[in-house]
Amino acid sequence: MEETFVPFRGIKNDIQGRLLCYKQDWTGGFKAGFRILAPTTYIFFASAIPVISFGEQLERSTEGVLTAVQTLASTAVCGIIHSIIGGQPLLILGVAEPTVIMYTFMFNFAKQRADLGRELFLAWTGWVCVWTAALLVMLAILGACSIINRFTRVAGELFGMLIAMLFMQQAIKGLVEEFRIPQREDASRMEFMPSWRFANGMFALVLSFGLLLTGLKSRKARSWRYGSGWIRSLIADYGVPIMVLVWTAVSYIPTKNVPQGIPRRLFSPNPWTPGAYENWTEMLNVPIIYILGAFIPATMIAVLYYFDHSVASQLAQQEEFNLRKPPSFHYDLLLLGFLTLMCGLIGIPPSNGVIPQSPMHTKSLATLKHQLLRNRLVATARESIQKNSSLGKLYGNMQQAYQQMQTPLIYQESSQKQGLKELKESTIQLASSMGSFDAPVDETVFDVDKEIDDLLPVEVKEQRLSNLLQAVMVGGCVAAMPALRMIPTSVLWGYFAFMAIESLPGNQFWERILLLFTAPSRRYKVLEDYHATFVETVPFRTIAMFTIFQTTYLLLCFGITWVPIAGLLFPLLIMLLVPVRQYMLPKFFKGVHLQDLDAADYEEAPAVQFNIPQEEELGGRVSFAEGGEILDGIITRGRGEIKRICSPRVTSSSTTPAKDFKLQSPRFSEKAYSPRVSELRGEPSPRLGGRGHNSPRIGEVGQSNLGISPRSSTSNQ
Amino acid sequence: MEETFVPFRGIKNDIQGRLLCYKQDWTGGFKAGFRILAPTTYIFFASAIPVISFGEQLERSTEGVLTAVQTLASTAVCGIIHSIIGGQPLLILGVAEPTVIMYTFMFNFAKQRADLGRELFLAWTGWVCVWTAALLVMLAILGACSIINRFTRVAGELFGMLIAMLFMQQAIKGLVEEFRIPQREDASRMEFMPSWRFANGMFALVLSFGLLLTGLKSRKARSWRYGSGWIRSLIADYGVPIMVLVWTAVSYIPTKNVPQGIPRRLFSPNPWTPGAYENWTEMLNVPIIYILGAFIPATMIAVLYYFDHSVASQLAQQEEFNLRKPPSFHYDLLLLGFLTLMCGLIGIPPSNGVIPQSPMHTKSLATLKHQLLRNRLVATARESIQKNSSLGKLYGNMQQAYQQMQTPLIYQESSQKQGLKELKESTIQLASSMGSFDAPVDETVFDVDKEIDDLLPVEVKEQRLSNLLQAVMVGGCVAAMPALRMIPTSVLWGYFAFMAIESLPGNQFWERILLLFTAPSRRYKVLEDYHATFVETVPFRTIAMFTIFQTTYLLLCFGITWVPIAGLLFPLLIMLLVPVRQYMLPKFFKGVHLQDLDAADYEEAPAVQFNIPQEEELGGRVSFAEGGEILDGIITRGRGEIKRICSPRVTSSSTTPAKDFKLQSPRFSEKAYSPRVSELRGEPSPRLGGRGHNSPRIGEVGQSNLGISPRSSTSNQ
Repeated sequence: MEETFVPFRGIKNDIQGRLLCYKQDWTGGFKAGFRILAPTTYIFFASAIPVISFGEQLERSTEGVLTAVQTLASTAVCGIIHSIIGGQPLLILGVAEPTVIMYTFMFNFAKQRADLGRELFLAWTGWVCVWTAALLVMLAILGACSIINRFTRVAGELFGMLIAMLFMQQAIKGLVEEFRIPQREDASRMEFMPSWRFANGMFALVLSFGLLLTGLKSRKARSWRYGSGWIRSLIADYGVPIMVLVWTAVSYIPTKNVPQGIPRRLFSPNPWTPGAYENWTEMLNVPIIYILGAFIPATMIAVLYYFDHSVASQLAQQEEFNLRKPPSFHYDLLLLGFLTLMCGLIGIPPSNGVIPQSPMHTKSLATLKHQLLRNRLVATARESIQKNSSLGKLYGNMQQAYQQMQTPLIYQESSQKQGLKELKESTIQLASSMGSFDAPVDETVFDVDKEIDDLLPVEVKEQRLSNLLQAVMVGGCVAAMPALRMIPTSVLWGYFAFMAIESLPGNQFWERILLLFTAPSRRYKVLEDYHATFVETVPFRTIAMFTIFQTTYLLLCFGITWVPIAGLLFPLLIMLLVPVRQYMLPKFFKGVHLQDLDAADYEEAPAVQFNIPQEEELGGRVSFAEGGEILDGIITRGRGEIKRICSPRVTSSSTTPAKDFKLQSPRFSEKAYSPRVSELRGEPSPRLGGRGHNSPRIGEVGQSNLGISPRSSTSNQ
Repeated sequence: MEETFVPFRGIKNDIQGRLLCYKQDWTGGFKAGFRILAPTTYIFFASAIPVISFGEQLERSTEGVLTAVQTLASTAVCGIIHSIIGGQPLLILGVAEPTVIMYTFMFNFAKQRADLGRELFLAWTGWVCVWTAALLVMLAILGACSIINRFTRVAGELFGMLIAMLFMQQAIKGLVEEFRIPQREDASRMEFMPSWRFANGMFALVLSFGLLLTGLKSRKARSWRYGSGWIRSLIADYGVPIMVLVWTAVSYIPTKNVPQGIPRRLFSPNPWTPGAYENWTEMLNVPIIYILGAFIPATMIAVLYYFDHSVASQLAQQEEFNLRKPPSFHYDLLLLGFLTLMCGLIGIPPSNGVIPQSPMHTKSLATLKHQLLRNRLVATARESIQKNSSLGKLYGNMQQAYQQMQTPLIYQESSQKQGLKELKESTIQLASSMGSFDAPVDETVFDVDKEIDDLLPVEVKEQRLSNLLQAVMVGGCVAAMPALRMIPTSVLWGYFAFMAIESLPGNQFWERILLLFTAPSRRYKVLEDYHATFVETVPFRTIAMFTIFQTTYLLLCFGITWVPIAGLLFPLLIMLLVPVRQYMLPKFFKGVHLQDLDAADYEEAPAVQFNIPQEEELGGRVSFAEGGEILDGIITRGRGEIKRICSPRVTSSSTTPAKDFKLQSPRFSEKAYSPRVSELRGEPSPRLGGRGHNSPRIGEVGQSNLGISPRSSTSNQ
């Protein structure tokens, strides 16, 4: 992979790539119809609730200078701008915990200085934002994001786990607080009597666990056995918002004899004050020494944002999502610079790319795309069956329908073909398993509802509408503050725990931790669920060692967040993982194993030339088996969640996308057809199915070698 | 089935049947070793907790005349006697809710009479018991239990559901009470202030839901992926007792500022009073008119006990448990008569057979037997694999081990052969699927841990030890009262809900209710889980109609329990189902469908002669397919719970068991090989697998026709 630090090149490539699909970003969103509201609402809650809670936190630590109104405003404005002119629309922006900690630290500093004080605090942070913006713009121009490919899975997933831990910590802290007297309140009030405090705490336990458990259950509604399809869909799509409403309603049930403050609810922030959002008029009053001094916190924030923003974007675009549109790291960092500047000038805390909301966004859009594809193909298949078509005809119709669902984009051609072939191969596989291709099919042979989930590849509805809508809805929260005040804080804590848990599935680090606790006799089950190929190719001892190392590192990072000021530097500790991964780990682990556990592009590249002949040879032999595994490799049956398959995809924007495809496809095929796997097991391994069938080249070889085509399989019969 | 009302014949047959296996009832129990403690503890909790709670209820309603000490003593004494000299040791005895309601009613009556009063209440109930005992003994002698086969599934399962509803109602009532001031307490105490009452209620919610959810989770521990095997087994076996301890411990966490009475705990009953348990000395003081009048409540109690006791026994011996030992309805009713007399004389409320504890007992013993068989066979298979044996040898060894696990009982021969053949056929099936029989097997080909669960038939460890031990432990509770007082009442309510939910799986009525709410496209999943053959053979409309009728009847019964005195008569309403089922239902439903939904022996009999030739013919054709289904039809993989397979088994004790087998087997085969099913679907249906392979005759035919034996399948290769 090219690491180019030529100024502006990265930004230029990003803009070029995204401009090609800009129109489709909007048309695609609108074409999805009202269904787009499902991921939108889901992400809106995931985005708004923490922002409100961080706002409450800021209010307490800045003595009311900044409130939830400001954090909501920042999240909304930055989100709207990013969704419209940003590069990667999958990325969700918001005011994050590190920002809150940083602002708290700066407030405590400013308060102590006579020539700054509480009055000039906001103006001073304005200068910090100016410097931060300058640094971010510089980093973007110099192509600092080119080294994003050095942030391997190990770093990104560790960061994701850390955020999950911080969310869970917040949930627990919040619940414990429910038993105590809040700082800013009058301790003599009735609801702070020991008895009522205890009652409040217990009520909080009921509400938060109620939300957490029902929320988690509702996400799995699609696979429920009961209720008609649309009810299950509705619950799966809107279950969490519904549950927030339900548990808020429950919190109003006990009214008799219970004082007003129980359960505790969101604190109402100050209303709009005149003169707010004109911070720039104040900024000139800041003494010059502090303007210069603002550079010191600015560097820390810049490093933090550079890392946060890029990793959030990277996690939202993981390989297994099979994204079709190019990423935009450089340009997005540039835009973040300008957004930070804007926030500083109007006096609100800046937003940046957030975890776990960004990957949650992509996941929910994958579910959406799956639903859309599914509905269309089921309708097509049903129609064909009613017309008594043969399986060959059925396949043709489904292929056509699938094709229509794809967006005709210039650079996208090669990837589009792949999606088609996936469908084609699975159908052929199905046909040959039934021994017939031209006989009329009916529902008993081809059970549309059951089969369709297995046929569909993971695809993501990549568009800008959901991001824009959720940002607008966050903005709407400012106006809806009186309604928001009805939500009990304990429901908030339950929601924090829910988010922490929701962010875990799909995180390979987490899956490996679970694997360590899995009974040896049941480890094979991990394969069934996650398609974690490393379970087959890497010895358990090595997996354990690697995971223990990663866990130790995680706990170190988590420990550091507890250290008052140094805690801010935890991103540096995670960035330190990059050289550790590149220079130290290869000394302790075998290269092959490291590749399987934590694929790094820079290590993979040299292998390309070496293995090409071998791989073609194998392609012909193995690719038939591969079809069978497609049935497993794609979308979890009924769970509505995502399984991994990989497709060659641009992971850096330094090269043009089209070029990248050609460069990368041989590399992936080489990996997929490693002879070791196919020899070890007589049956098709998930690895072959998972990675192999996405390579256009091998697929073609396999097909011609086997001579499988609709015609020839018919003549056999 | 023979309905003989010749005096004493039923009792004689019962005693003869049970005497044959009496020695094995004890040796079998002791041979199970310490593992017998798992079902024992499980049933002890299920037995003791409701009895304690009913005792508390009685104490309140009899102003302290009867307490939990008496209910525990009755349950213990009756349980010990029944487990030693009773007929069916699977039946669990205990003081049940109807007894409590009856005693409450009698207390209110006695209190109002000047010549009885609180003092002579117990003496008078002594006379009621005398009359009840006389009626029960008479019913037993006259063979009233011969009509037990008219209590079809529809009646038994409806009764089971009703009890589950009553338990759930008790749980909800109890929880609501936690928010109120208890009647017998001083309302001015600190813990009854509104704030503390609210706190107590919320705490109760946390504790009861905590127990319920963790209890339910722990029962599934065997299929968990994490933790080593013995930890999972431990949690699955003792999870519920452990959870009672855990949540009791949790209830002690909040001590600071929380008054002593929160959470509320079990009330301590009066200690032993001198003169207690000498009720007979008082009984002569009762005026003669009341001695005669006692006959009226006695008839009601006798009807109640006759029904309760028989249905509890019947539900503990359902077909799908594949019991090997004969039932003992007549003799057990006789014994119940004497037990009632004894309880009356010593002045404690009598016990009778209880639901859901009795079927829970059988289920837990099936799990135990499965574990024992499994361990033995896994060890044998491992040994064979280590010695590099062929699959043929492996099969031989496993067959031998299986044989050794069977008890050599005279009357049992035919059933023993079946179990063996099940194992044999599945192994052959396995062998032919792998194409080899003489090649050495290794763990990759024959994964012992995975396969073994599929090979084993449902069998129950039928013995007397677990029943005796649990009764002794219940007796120990009287001494352990100070420790029991530490358990919060809310944990009790959680446990009631747990028992209600635990009693549901396996209840076909419940499964049909669920089926009504299942989306049409997912109804096939019910087949996968429950092997509910009726889903395939009966039109959905008919299933729905039948279930709605049953549900209406259930709600009627439930409604009647709310009517103050008439409520006692709800067993009569359930008994009314017998004629309704026999004479009314056949007018609304087709006979074939009715047979599938609610098999009644008296309706099935005429079909025997008619179909025999057809069935043999079919047997040869179908029985190979059958093998494939064995893999599904037996024990749920990993869930450790029970699936249904049916075996010809004695359902009445009026005939001698050995004779019964010969009479019944053709009937079952006829049912199993109905041509309709096999023609409808090209694949093996669960019905064939489920029922068919248990018929010894057909199985032999099928095998010889196909020529599958270890030898011949080897030569093919």
